Amino acid sequence: MTERIEVDPAVVEHYLTALAQFGAYGETGIWRLVYSPEWVAAQEQVQQWCREIGLTARMDGAGNVWGRIDGAEGGKSIVTGSHIDSQAPGGRFDGALGVVAALAAVRTLVERFGPPKRPLEVLSFCEEESSRFASTNFWGSRAITGAIGPDETETVVGFDGIPIGEAMRAVGLDPDTLPGVERDDIDTFIELHIEQGPILEQEGLPVGIVTAITGLRHYVVELTGRSDHAGARPMDTRRDPMPAAAEIITDVVTTALRFGRPAVTTIGNMRVEPNLPAAVPDKITFMIDARHPDPEVRQRLFAKHERTIAEVAARHDIDVTWRVVADHDPAVSDPGVVATLEEAARTQGIPYRLMHSGAGHDTQRMAKKAKVAMIFVQSKDGRSHTPAEFTSIDHAVQGINVLTEALYRLAYE
Amino acid sequence: MTERIEVDPAVVEHYLTALAQFGAYGETGIWRLVYSPEWVAAQEQVQQWCREIGLTARMDGAGNVWGRIDGAEGGKSIVTGSHIDSQAPGGRFDGALGVVAALAAVRTLVERFGPPKRPLEVLSFCEEESSRFASTNFWGSRAITGAIGPDETETVVGFDGIPIGEAMRAVGLDPDTLPGVERDDIDTFIELHIEQGPILEQEGLPVGIVTAITGLRHYVVELTGRSDHAGARPMDTRRDPMPAAAEIITDVVTTALRFGRPAVTTIGNMRVEPNLPAAVPDKITFMIDARHPDPEVRQRLFAKHERTIAEVAARHDIDVTWRVVADHDPAVSDPGVVATLEEAARTQGIPYRLMHSGAGHDTQRMAKKAKVAMIFVQSKDGRSHTPAEFTSIDHAVQGINVLTEALYRLAYE
Repeated sequence: MTERIEVDPAVVEHYLTALAQFGAYGETGIWRLVYSPEWVAAQEQVQQWCREIGLTARMDGAGNVWGRIDGAEGGKSIVTGSHIDSQAPGGRFDGALGVVAALAAVRTLVERFGPPKRPLEVLSFCEEESSRFASTNFWGSRAITGAIGPDETETVVGFDGIPIGEAMRAVGLDPDTLPGVERDDIDTFIELHIEQGPILEQEGLPVGIVTAITGLRHYVVELTGRSDHAGARPMDTRRDPMPAAAEIITDVVTTALRFGRPAVTTIGNMRVEPNLPAAVPDKITFMIDARHPDPEVRQRLFAKHERTIAEVAARHDIDVTWRVVADHDPAVSDPGVVATLEEAARTQGIPYRLMHSGAGHDTQRMAKKAKVAMIFVQSKDGRSHTPAEFTSIDHAVQGINVLTEALYRLAYE
Repeated sequence: MTERIEVDPAVVEHYLTALAQFGAYGETGIWRLVYSPEWVAAQEQVQQWCREIGLTARMDGAGNVWGRIDGAEGGKSIVTGSHIDSQAPGGRFDGALGVVAALAAVRTLVERFGPPKRPLEVLSFCEEESSRFASTNFWGSRAITGAIGPDETETVVGFDGIPIGEAMRAVGLDPDTLPGVERDDIDTFIELHIEQGPILEQEGLPVGIVTAITGLRHYVVELTGRSDHAGARPMDTRRDPMPAAAEIITDVVTTALRFGRPAVTTIGNMRVEPNLPAAVPDKITFMIDARHPDPEVRQRLFAKHERTIAEVAARHDIDVTWRVVADHDPAVSDPGVVATLEEAARTQGIPYRLMHSGAGHDTQRMAKKAKVAMIFVQSKDGRSHTPAEFTSIDHAVQGINVLTEALYRLAYE
């Protein structure tokens, strides 16, 4: 190989714009929940594009779309892709850009080099956002890695009250075929995704190569005191959970700041009962989202938060319970795949940095069955999960060129 | 007069139990919103009871019920009563007990002594709780004191979206007659009410005589930052309104504790947007309820809270606005009426204390047009605004005997 492998920016823009029509929301948004009519149309479009570029295409029993071209020498597959569903509403880049990248990269390679030595596959995951069902927990990649429990098609229930199995049947999928979705023949999985944070933009870099996906815990903390009249009950005889909640929030946020990057702790969800202006609350329920990619530091961060919750509640004479509703281990990228991506970026002359992902991704599930890594591209203002998220075609193309170069090395050399 | 004037506890219990049937909710609750069918039935019952004890009864243009017996010597009226509406749900004592007390006291006086020298009236206010319309702000007593603005029948809108004028018409009231409700011929107004706090119970007293109703402010504080991904946005580059809200809450609660009794500050209402577990919030809106019965200390308390809000928001780089949505001056009881109530309690041999009211009451509105004071009776565990609120018949009767004795002095002597 003597010439740089480059995708056509017009092709990237075409796929991205066309995909954004399915579930378009306002001027720049997307509202495309798993197993919705918009989602069905988008996954059909992805299959059609796969066929147009010479791949065989199919939807598996979970609703993931696979486009495949066999390798002359056989072996396990080199796979790339991301998820097709969106937040409610989300933007046109989160997930979709990784599907577009996969299509553009494989199209470029097949057009220029013909069939690969090893099987090469485009993957469009059915679901990643938990935007229709709270506890899907990466439905598409869990199906592929055989991590969906036997009763989950009934117990995973949507915000509309519909079990996911019923939603699957409504679009012609048979939940009983889920076990057949599992794949044990994937060698490498690479996902291109928007950063969703501000680091690349702040450093003026188009591309990041992800060495680890952060570990996270979601706690649901419930503080129970006693509701009283806001005027008639003296302060010193109250059992008010609100100041206890405030003190816990202050402490966990300060702790994460003190641990320093990349520790993050967020309180984004809170419910106050009875939520009246003139009544001391009975109960405050809030969630703590705490993350760190280092397995040891992560444990220290979580332990400190748990001590704070217990100590503050006891001091305020407030009953407290907490439970962990999500607990994801950090997922470390494969060093060989990371090295291949770095070589690809250097070959392409594209500036990059190594970084971790603060967000969760299907890649962390795929890591159970394959060598993985991710490519990040710059997010304007670090925004995501909003119609305002934006990545320029220039930055997208630089990331896709790194992907394409790496796929060449993995599937063709 | 040589014998003590005492009401029949069986009469008190009868009225209380019968009134609790209108809008009964569960075993001990009441759900009786102004201008509802339950409310109409309750106000009709009150009128019927008034007629049974020899009063003329009428509903005014606001829906207040008046039962009146003229005085042999004429002059301005001696009035007693409370409100008939409830929280959603509330208990059977808050408001209703003051109507029951008025009926039992006047019945006892008329039965024993015949017509008074001065006009004596039972009053059942239409509305006090703001439980159907957020901004009624004492609809019944505002009508009586001529304090309802000309467009409020359209601008005061219920939680169900119905303007109060429409709700009035639905029960046969003509909003155009509201100005005619104003009374300028009330000499004295006394309201008996449950304490809604724990002080009488803690001190083992059945009765309190209220020397002032606290001043209060309700602030709506809006903190606006920037929503970001909880994993991908480093802590040190966030504009997160949550820790700012937590710090403000901690400070205002601590300040009220440091001011000492009777200062109270409560945060009972909060809304987080977008309220997602894994997103830094955009915006937090919460209410601060701050009260003090001393006009000067009250201003210092409010000023300190306002400085805190501004200072914390600025330090966190969070946009902040606040507005005062309720601002009630403290209402001081008439010293002569308080003295009469004290004499009545001493004559009856009923232990009492002087105290302020931390809750707002129609009495503070009536103070604009009449000499006022209130009688509190003990609340079990200080509870109110809940079906669990409770006052024993014994404590209620002791309070009503003080009322009856005082009304005798005011209307008969």
